[in-house]
Amino acid sequence: MASETPRDGRPTKPLLRVLDGEQVWPPPLWLMRQAGRYLPEYREVRARAGDFVTLCTTPEMAAEVTLQPIRRYGFDASILFSDILMVPWAMGQPLRFAEGEGPLLEPVRDAAAIGALRATGVAERAASIMETVRRVRAGLDAEAPRTALIGFAGSPFTVACYMVEGRGSKDFAAPRAMAHADPALFGRLIRMLTEATADYLVAQAEAGAEALMLFDSWAGLLPPAQFRRWVIEPSASLVRLLRKRLPTMPLIGFPRLAGPMLAEYAQRVGVQAVGMDTAMDPRWAAAAVADDMALQGNLDPQALIAGGPALEVEARAILGAMRGRPFIFNLGHGIEKTTPPEHVSALVRVVRSG
Amino acid sequence: MASETPRDGRPTKPLLRVLDGEQVWPPPLWLMRQAGRYLPEYREVRARAGDFVTLCTTPEMAAEVTLQPIRRYGFDASILFSDILMVPWAMGQPLRFAEGEGPLLEPVRDAAAIGALRATGVAERAASIMETVRRVRAGLDAEAPRTALIGFAGSPFTVACYMVEGRGSKDFAAPRAMAHADPALFGRLIRMLTEATADYLVAQAEAGAEALMLFDSWAGLLPPAQFRRWVIEPSASLVRLLRKRLPTMPLIGFPRLAGPMLAEYAQRVGVQAVGMDTAMDPRWAAAAVADDMALQGNLDPQALIAGGPALEVEARAILGAMRGRPFIFNLGHGIEKTTPPEHVSALVRVVRSG
Repeated sequence: MASETPRDGRPTKPLLRVLDGEQVWPPPLWLMRQAGRYLPEYREVRARAGDFVTLCTTPEMAAEVTLQPIRRYGFDASILFSDILMVPWAMGQPLRFAEGEGPLLEPVRDAAAIGALRATGVAERAASIMETVRRVRAGLDAEAPRTALIGFAGSPFTVACYMVEGRGSKDFAAPRAMAHADPALFGRLIRMLTEATADYLVAQAEAGAEALMLFDSWAGLLPPAQFRRWVIEPSASLVRLLRKRLPTMPLIGFPRLAGPMLAEYAQRVGVQAVGMDTAMDPRWAAAAVADDMALQGNLDPQALIAGGPALEVEARAILGAMRGRPFIFNLGHGIEKTTPPEHVSALVRVVRSG
Repeated sequence: MASETPRDGRPTKPLLRVLDGEQVWPPPLWLMRQAGRYLPEYREVRARAGDFVTLCTTPEMAAEVTLQPIRRYGFDASILFSDILMVPWAMGQPLRFAEGEGPLLEPVRDAAAIGALRATGVAERAASIMETVRRVRAGLDAEAPRTALIGFAGSPFTVACYMVEGRGSKDFAAPRAMAHADPALFGRLIRMLTEATADYLVAQAEAGAEALMLFDSWAGLLPPAQFRRWVIEPSASLVRLLRKRLPTMPLIGFPRLAGPMLAEYAQRVGVQAVGMDTAMDPRWAAAAVADDMALQGNLDPQALIAGGPALEVEARAILGAMRGRPFIFNLGHGIEKTTPPEHVSALVRVVRSG
């Protein structure tokens, strides 16, 4: 593994410099779900894997699709190809991905089902994912030494949403009902997830991840008091657990659709950067979040599909709002499978021209 | 029709007093989707109607279900039982509601399909809905003289989302793609909807509605520049059209998931009140929106399902944040069909005890 940190202790990769509080311009750039179905080379491996869990747990294939977008676009970050539901999978909850339906889990809705989950040993049961991290890091060291490797997990609340609902949903009524009706039980699940996720992320760091991101895709469902209790507090606990074992690891939090609660999240969770979703006004976020905290985001994936002048205008508006602070250019949501790959090249040119 | 406005020109119904800028405490109370499947008496009429469009267009049944929750709970507002998609229906777009799937429309995705829609004559083709409004108003005048009648429509953006997508969706990719790729065509649809919706709302006012609400359920999908272009500007145009014909009609806007953009919406659209969705922090909204503008919301429907102390704590937190300004208590999203009717009674007691 190449040494990233020079003698003065400051990182040299652009993404890590930004997470260290530095203003880097043009800003580093990567795209959420950049390894995905919009790339023909991804679709080829995906077809070979058969099912999605096999793709996530076969290091040769998962490492290959992780590196594909780096080879094509030279992004500043590579994010482990995996899924936030690999943590419940490693806790023993049966998981499969049905064509056109998304993830399907056996729902856990009572104390017996939650008690049957295994909160310890997750990193060991996810050993294949750690092997993927090692392979990706070796690949980057050899092929793309300026590209940083981001590990990730879902935040406890969002992962709990899928575990209790058993599938994707517009409103995740079952977990939200459990959070109100039986907060002790829901809290037990959240604590198990917090510990399991800490182990899982530490293992990714030990395998070579240079930054870690927490995806809280469904944080925006919650009213403020619930947001504090089920998003901010467990995320802060998770960060404290990580800090004991990874004192200098940069962390990115992404509480999607947090709205005005983004400010409190940024202040209290303990991350070095926060992601802005598509709907967030970057100027509002720039005013609400401390100047030395990095922001990441938030081009509308629909603008990337449209391409042309719409893409350039929207990308430049975000760059304009973020100039003068630590910033990482990204989408505000995962890239869509209908995105023309050449539009991504056009975006890279716009961002790299500052 | 009973005369509502006394000699000094000020309204007497609590909801209308709040919309006139007055602080009324305890605040008036109603619930979004208060006429609905959680009520056994609704389910009985719904079964009799057969399909949902028939229920919306049969004045006897639509008026009956509109009045049911007023009889049961004595709410301060009655909202016309209808659907935001009755405007595209009246514009000539085939509409049906499939069990478990929600609304299904023939999608309009090109100039020919949009050109075939009829933007004028909507109020006439929706004559059955106006008859429902007249019947409800007569019922309230006879049975519940302090309950105000709210008419409503979807805002042009949200209705366009359904018209282009053809159904409900998590992300409404088709209309958002059209807005980027062919803003002239999407803008044409938005303008047609703005005019049709103005006629439709004026007809509701002429039939007896005392306040009008604009539902923009999918406003929160849009990044700021798109939010200004497709939510704020068309809503402001619609309000200007309404103001020419209904100079004193109180208007409530509900841009769901607007997040920090709620402030700009409140300032620019020209409504008398804005609705807060479940995720909005009422204290943030109270600081961001002018003191004399009414706020409405925003109890989590899940708290109402849970009932008990969770319900009381959450309701009191909202009341505490809203004390000292014009305020209408409501949910932050429509009531869920699994809500126990007795929890609604408990909520009424909490709110009416101030």
